[in-house]
Amino acid sequence: MTSIETLDYVGVGLFAATGALAASRKQLDIIGFLFLAAVTGIGGGTARDLILDVPVFWISNPIYLLICAGTAGVIYITAPFVESRYKILLWLDAVALAAYGVFGAHKGLIVTGSATIGIVMGMLTGTLGGIIRDILAREASVLLRREIYIAACAIGAAIYVALNKAGLEPWAAAAVGFVMAFGIRGGTIKFGWRLPAYRSTPGRDPEDI
Amino acid sequence: MTSIETLDYVGVGLFAATGALAASRKQLDIIGFLFLAAVTGIGGGTARDLILDVPVFWISNPIYLLICAGTAGVIYITAPFVESRYKILLWLDAVALAAYGVFGAHKGLIVTGSATIGIVMGMLTGTLGGIIRDILAREASVLLRREIYIAACAIGAAIYVALNKAGLEPWAAAAVGFVMAFGIRGGTIKFGWRLPAYRSTPGRDPEDI
Amino acid sequence: MTSIETLDYVGVGLFAATGALAASRKQLDIIGFLFLAAVTGIGGGTARDLILDVPVFWISNPIYLLICAGTAGVIYITAPFVESRYKILLWLDAVALAAYGVFGAHKGLIVTGSATIGIVMGMLTGTLGGIIRDILAREASVLLRREIYIAACAIGAAIYVALNKAGLEPWAAAAVGFVMAFGIRGGTIKFGWRLPAYRSTPGRDPEDI
Repeated sequence: MTSIETLDYVGVGLFAATGALAASRKQLDIIGFLFLAAVTGIGGGTARDLILDVPVFWISNPIYLLICAGTAGVIYITAPFVESRYKILLWLDAVALAAYGVFGAHKGLIVTGSATIGIVMGMLTGTLGGIIRDILAREASVLLRREIYIAACAIGAAIYVALNKAGLEPWAAAAVGFVMAFGIRGGTIKFGWRLPAYRSTPGRDPEDI
Repeated sequence: MTSIETLDYVGVGLFAATGALAASRKQLDIIGFLFLAAVTGIGGGTARDLILDVPVFWISNPIYLLICAGTAGVIYITAPFVESRYKILLWLDAVALAAYGVFGAHKGLIVTGSATIGIVMGMLTGTLGGIIRDILAREASVLLRREIYIAACAIGAAIYVALNKAGLEPWAAAAVGFVMAFGIRGGTIKFGWRLPAYRSTPGRDPEDI
Repeated sequence: MTSIETLDYVGVGLFAATGALAASRKQLDIIGFLFLAAVTGIGGGTARDLILDVPVFWISNPIYLLICAGTAGVIYITAPFVESRYKILLWLDAVALAAYGVFGAHKGLIVTGSATIGIVMGMLTGTLGGIIRDILAREASVLLRREIYIAACAIGAAIYVALNKAGLEPWAAAAVGFVMAFGIRGGTIKFGWRLPAYRSTPGRDPEDI
């Protein structure tokens, strides 16, 4: 197994863990844990493979479903002993975002050869699982919270694509992309980094404009 | 037409009816009825076919769209005379969940031969239409209500797959799977059956953890 | 470039603009603008191509992504100077709905030859982007507001299919379909046109039925 494939398993497993943590916050039953873990874990990669017109990754290799199910079971048992589930969810999500974003860029690049599609596929793979999780669990979507989230994933994907095109070994390009994406997202969680706020019309509620 | 194919039409038609009933609860116009009926009726099977990489079932056979449209028309005319639309929606949804879950498992099994994929496809086919309906109509999602819903569908799909692999005639395996899934879901609606509640940290609001 | 292909670019660009305007109403950052513009601009056509089992249009031709990105940038800069963003969003959405609905019908018809599928694909292509935008941005969905929206798109698509089948030149059929769809949707925005309200059971709250 290459380092790039490791990122795939890491991304699926960690996103599954965040789905199960969301289920624990909603006090769902074990089936709710399994369902949210699976949808969050494999949702982004499923959309990626459908759009790239390649076989959906978990159809030919059910190990991914077992990873999701096993993760859901572990979280179901351990979550009550955790002090702050939401904080853990956020940090696991950050690692998954970085890992899966780089892996998505790798796969998009392999299939199409296009740098643009590689970056877009990285963003899609890294962020879609979490967006679906938040819609299904009715959590506040990270998309609307103006945190650096999609941007961190996009930067990691873009760095991977750029270094790969520059001739670097895939595993080295992946390592740099992963570290950058996780560093940016982690700094956002830890220090509250923000992109510049949108300059709306002063003195008016933007929802009324 | 075999008994298995009957389950397909039954599932599509009944899910379409629940979509139209949701439209009536939101007092939409006739186009809203048609749209919610179609999305609910064919949504789960569309995702199933895309993921299995087989032609989407309603593209080559528009009879499914006519079933959805006809069902929407019937509900549009008859719904005002119904005492409790939500109760009917729940029961039709239970029959559709059982029928479409078994049919999804059958199709997943035929295409891939994998028992795991069969069960997952059954769950996906049986539950996705209702989940999309609840998101679009902004109804409380059954996913978050801790009822036995996905589990009933999964058990029906698993029984179908097990009996089919054991050599039983498909129609007989389908009948047993359907009855079990409907029995479990029906008991949940009628008697309020629940899976064990999640053991959260005592004395704290799980949303704050 | 034929007139029909023009409708494609117009639809993608205008839907992207409505996504960016939704981002400005939520005061997102530049990445939020790009993301909502891209999802709204290419979401409907992506679902269309997946269901028709043809290559997703923006994979082989990244110009569409550039259109979305450029539009998001322009809206990011110009939106603060606009008096009523929501009104502009509504009118751009109306043009996009008409253009993309006709183009979706055209593509559905070319791929399958079926008039039914053509009309359904027109509706899907024209309306799905806006529905996804409203779910992600947590705006009130036009689907639940009982306005003439999906119906306008469906009528434009149906007129295009009928005139095309009747032997009219595609560009002429497209022009008539576009004008009809935009006329109906525009009248709805300007004059508050409505389809007949659903006759619910008098004296009772439909949500309780």
